Amino acid sequence: MRLLLIHADYIEYEPKEKTKFAEDWEPKKERIEECLVVFTSVEKGDENVVDRAVEEIREVAKKLNVDKIVVYPYAHLSSNLADPDTAVAVLKEIESKLSQDFNVHRAPFGWYKAFKLSCKGHPLSELSRSIVVEEEKEVTQALKAEEKVKS
Amino acid sequence: MRLLLIHADYIEYEPKEKTKFAEDWEPKKERIEECLVVFTSVEKGDENVVDRAVEEIREVAKKLNVDKIVVYPYAHLSSNLADPDTAVAVLKEIESKLSQDFNVHRAPFGWYKAFKLSCKGHPLSELSRSIVVEEEKEVTQALKAEEKVKS
Ligand SMILES: [Mg+2]
Repeated sequence: MRLLLIHADYIEYEPKEKTKFAEDWEPKKERIEECLVVFTSVEKGDENVVDRAVEEIREVAKKLNVDKIVVYPYAHLSSNLADPDTAVAVLKEIESKLSQDFNVHRAPFGWYKAFKLSCKGHPLSELSRSIVVEEEKEVTQALKAEEKVKS
Repeated sequence: MRLLLIHADYIEYEPKEKTKFAEDWEPKKERIEECLVVFTSVEKGDENVVDRAVEEIREVAKKLNVDKIVVYPYAHLSSNLADPDTAVAVLKEIESKLSQDFNVHRAPFGWYKAFKLSCKGHPLSELSRSIVVEEEKEVTQALKAEEKVKS
């Protein structure tokens, strides 16, 4: 799983058009303020790393002291995507588990969406995580080091 | 090199704080409207794929009929980043080559930046590309196929 975590003043989005993998969804404009937006690429095998992903997201959200999390499916962070059914199942599980502690909004999978995003710009306002089944520890550490080189 | 290409109503950004790799830059707020924003992770070896990258960007920009391109360094698309000096050199070369045909704005490398972005949301308004030295053709094709699965 690849995550891009943005501490946002707001995100607004509107589902505009279905892909053939579109979730059944009543498209309407949404706006969430003062939140952590989690752009998420679900990769092959990720049904096995949901708890790890949830823990990473939870840790960042607590550090930023946000109570709202937006889980936003985002295919563009990976070239090794899970099939759509698995992706939706994983996203729903993340939503459900985070909902124990946070106010969670999940954006629909498989829609072309317009969005407006305002990233705060402080050093922790853009982070990324890569969570894999094997060699988990190594990958997470590599990405934590990478934060220091961000641009 | 990994590219995330966003057809935007606008991007606004403001450099807020230097990392230790910060380009020498006079920080000021910028706003570019009706543009293609190219979030760019320069990876190891990418000094060898600049022309390929420029060609991919040019192709998308022409398809979208934009005349403004924003080259925006973005470390979060890769776990295999080039060293900062190489990254800046590659970004400048992309800027220079695209400037032959487009109005190009390059955002500074190595700064924490606040930004506001509005993505149009039509099917070609979010694309990604991965350009590698070896097996170039395979990778590009895999990513083109992936566009059909975007969410
Ligand atoms: Mg991609």
